[in-house]
Amino acid sequence: MTTNPMRPPIITLLSDFGHQDAYVGIMKGVILGLNPWVQLVDLSHAVPPQDITMGALVLQSAWRYFPPGTIHLAVVDPGVGSRRRALAAAVGEHFLVGPDNGLFALILAQQPAQRMVCLENQRYFLPDVSATFHGRDIFAPVAAHLSLGVPLTEFGPELHESMPLDLPSPQFGASAATGQVIAVDHFGNLITNLPYPEIEAWRQGRSVRLWVGERQISHWVSTYSQVPAGALLALKGSHGYLEIACREGSAAKILGAGPGARVGILLAEAS
Amino acid sequence: MTTNPMRPPIITLLSDFGHQDAYVGIMKGVILGLNPWVQLVDLSHAVPPQDITMGALVLQSAWRYFPPGTIHLAVVDPGVGSRRRALAAAVGEHFLVGPDNGLFALILAQQPAQRMVCLENQRYFLPDVSATFHGRDIFAPVAAHLSLGVPLTEFGPELHESMPLDLPSPQFGASAATGQVIAVDHFGNLITNLPYPEIEAWRQGRSVRLWVGERQISHWVSTYSQVPAGALLALKGSHGYLEIACREGSAAKILGAGPGARVGILLAEAS
Amino acid sequence: MTTNPMRPPIITLLSDFGHQDAYVGIMKGVILGLNPWVQLVDLSHAVPPQDITMGALVLQSAWRYFPPGTIHLAVVDPGVGSRRRALAAAVGEHFLVGPDNGLFALILAQQPAQRMVCLENQRYFLPDVSATFHGRDIFAPVAAHLSLGVPLTEFGPELHESMPLDLPSPQFGASAATGQVIAVDHFGNLITNLPYPEIEAWRQGRSVRLWVGERQISHWVSTYSQVPAGALLALKGSHGYLEIACREGSAAKILGAGPGARVGILLAEAS
Repeated sequence: MTTNPMRPPIITLLSDFGHQDAYVGIMKGVILGLNPWVQLVDLSHAVPPQDITMGALVLQSAWRYFPPGTIHLAVVDPGVGSRRRALAAAVGEHFLVGPDNGLFALILAQQPAQRMVCLENQRYFLPDVSATFHGRDIFAPVAAHLSLGVPLTEFGPELHESMPLDLPSPQFGASAATGQVIAVDHFGNLITNLPYPEIEAWRQGRSVRLWVGERQISHWVSTYSQVPAGALLALKGSHGYLEIACREGSAAKILGAGPGARVGILLAEAS
Repeated sequence: MTTNPMRPPIITLLSDFGHQDAYVGIMKGVILGLNPWVQLVDLSHAVPPQDITMGALVLQSAWRYFPPGTIHLAVVDPGVGSRRRALAAAVGEHFLVGPDNGLFALILAQQPAQRMVCLENQRYFLPDVSATFHGRDIFAPVAAHLSLGVPLTEFGPELHESMPLDLPSPQFGASAATGQVIAVDHFGNLITNLPYPEIEAWRQGRSVRLWVGERQISHWVSTYSQVPAGALLALKGSHGYLEIACREGSAAKILGAGPGARVGILLAEAS
Repeated sequence: MTTNPMRPPIITLLSDFGHQDAYVGIMKGVILGLNPWVQLVDLSHAVPPQDITMGALVLQSAWRYFPPGTIHLAVVDPGVGSRRRALAAAVGEHFLVGPDNGLFALILAQQPAQRMVCLENQRYFLPDVSATFHGRDIFAPVAAHLSLGVPLTEFGPELHESMPLDLPSPQFGASAATGQVIAVDHFGNLITNLPYPEIEAWRQGRSVRLWVGERQISHWVSTYSQVPAGALLALKGSHGYLEIACREGSAAKILGAGPGARVGILLAEAS
């Protein structure tokens, strides 16, 4: 990042802090006090409070669209003040900074870290570390120092394993596949744990029928405009998973479904 | 924009993506991967889902406060994946990028485009264009390339007409003017389709009476502080249209009025 | 700010404009038209409409985390268009710009201004000043000119006193201290008017019992993880005041408490 001093480093921010308080602004103030040239980009601060899974999904959906050198600072941190570890990691040409609680697990499952460290070197923290706001006191200054070119190994001892995320695995069988809704987005779309490429590999072009709970979804399409307004549909979502949506409506409301709702796909009989 | 390499180009962003998901952050990542020096400014991402009219009003209220060279990227796109066209336009010294569905119609009604093109040159898109997220795959990279100085004509063939917005016209008669509420803002203020300068030209200083539906609005003032707390008032709104508001309250709630509510102005008899 | 032309000046923004309309984006457009090199940081635009106290609390919690030279632009302005004054102030190495209505009172109570001026020099305003949107017409251009190095005294005559904020004072007695809830944050945490350092100085390590209204709070801890999920707790909040919270829940909902709720601390008898 220091090779081209004209290219501003990017730090993305994700949290469950919401937009009412100044917590996000404070983290940015700390960062800019250390590196005023940085480009700050909000991913989301409306992760439901302490919902590590939703935070992990949002991060996973976004990180690879940023250029090499980007630092992803994420704080969904129900264990702040306890003995949960804090980490920084190098993944591809990106960096991750935040609590070691599964928040980065979906990224690390896709692409293992070249190196991870446990954040322990207080030289890169704010002078007084509170028990309640490590985003400000630890993660923001560490991200800023990373953006200034401080090497990862400076921040603490190597970390060989990070916390996994406790997510259900989809099952792909001979005649059926089953999964679950794991998140609901702003439009009421149901995001499942069924990765679209895996469905396609399993299905091999054969016809299928699809259920969410007891309700069959008749349309499996590539775009909303292929169904009439108000219709339920299945499609490949922006996160790369099968999504259940409703054209000009909320699938979550219509189906009364949320995280945990079962999703089943049955191969149709060969005719 | 390339004449002064020190002056960062500005890209504004407007959408109905909300703040829960990372869709906006992803568009910014795509832009910064192509042009890391850009200034990114959010106009609003809380346009009600698929509400092209509200998106057009917000855009129209904001665009002219930005300096020459600004690129306005807007994505309220219920027709994504269908055959609706995508456009880029040069208007004044500004640029517009987004779907051709009326989103820019209020701007183009005020000031015709010098040039419009249909976005077809895939060289300026992301390699894989999804059926669901043209904000990321087409509009963000086109806006970034525009900010780097790629000429408008590079992006596709000229477009001679763009989609209009289906808005009611206000009527100015001999003794009465009529209009409608077309949007409701964050404070519950009712934005009408009656442009304030046209009201003033029609009224020529004569006294008037004003109704929203059946309810007469007694105060027509230049500032909230001219009426007591809780009172309904009419005034020139920030969008340049007549607005109906309530001091320290919500006019929308008090009047039970929203888009479509009729607004009537009667010239008082000359005494 | 002009000594290092490479170091972009920072302007923070706080308002009650919400995220639905483009009001915040418009202020940024005005600023960038005057100074395109500035770093813009949102503190919060979700201050409850016209809630000067909450705006003041958010500002006070955030401002000192920004580096010297930062300009804090704040607009919670129920008196816009009336005769309330507009001010700019130099405090420490920071600048404040906004209405003179108490919004900066908590900052100025902590650290008196070196200099305050009344914004009167129209040369630094937009050409047409509306009666409804001084954020755009006065405060944004003044902040931008400040960021370009215009001296404070250029903007108008000196101001010797600014408006206070009408907040209750906490009482520290021989055996009891009393205070009030003055704000509720995004998580439902109750922020009191009891400054944590003053509580500690008064308490001198002695045991205490704590009430919110009629309800005793059993846990007074340094971090959420010291109590079970669902438990109420008292702790030092990020604003520097005593806060009442609930682990994985909303203290405001559980206690049915909001601004004005009484908080009492009783010294336990020496045994």
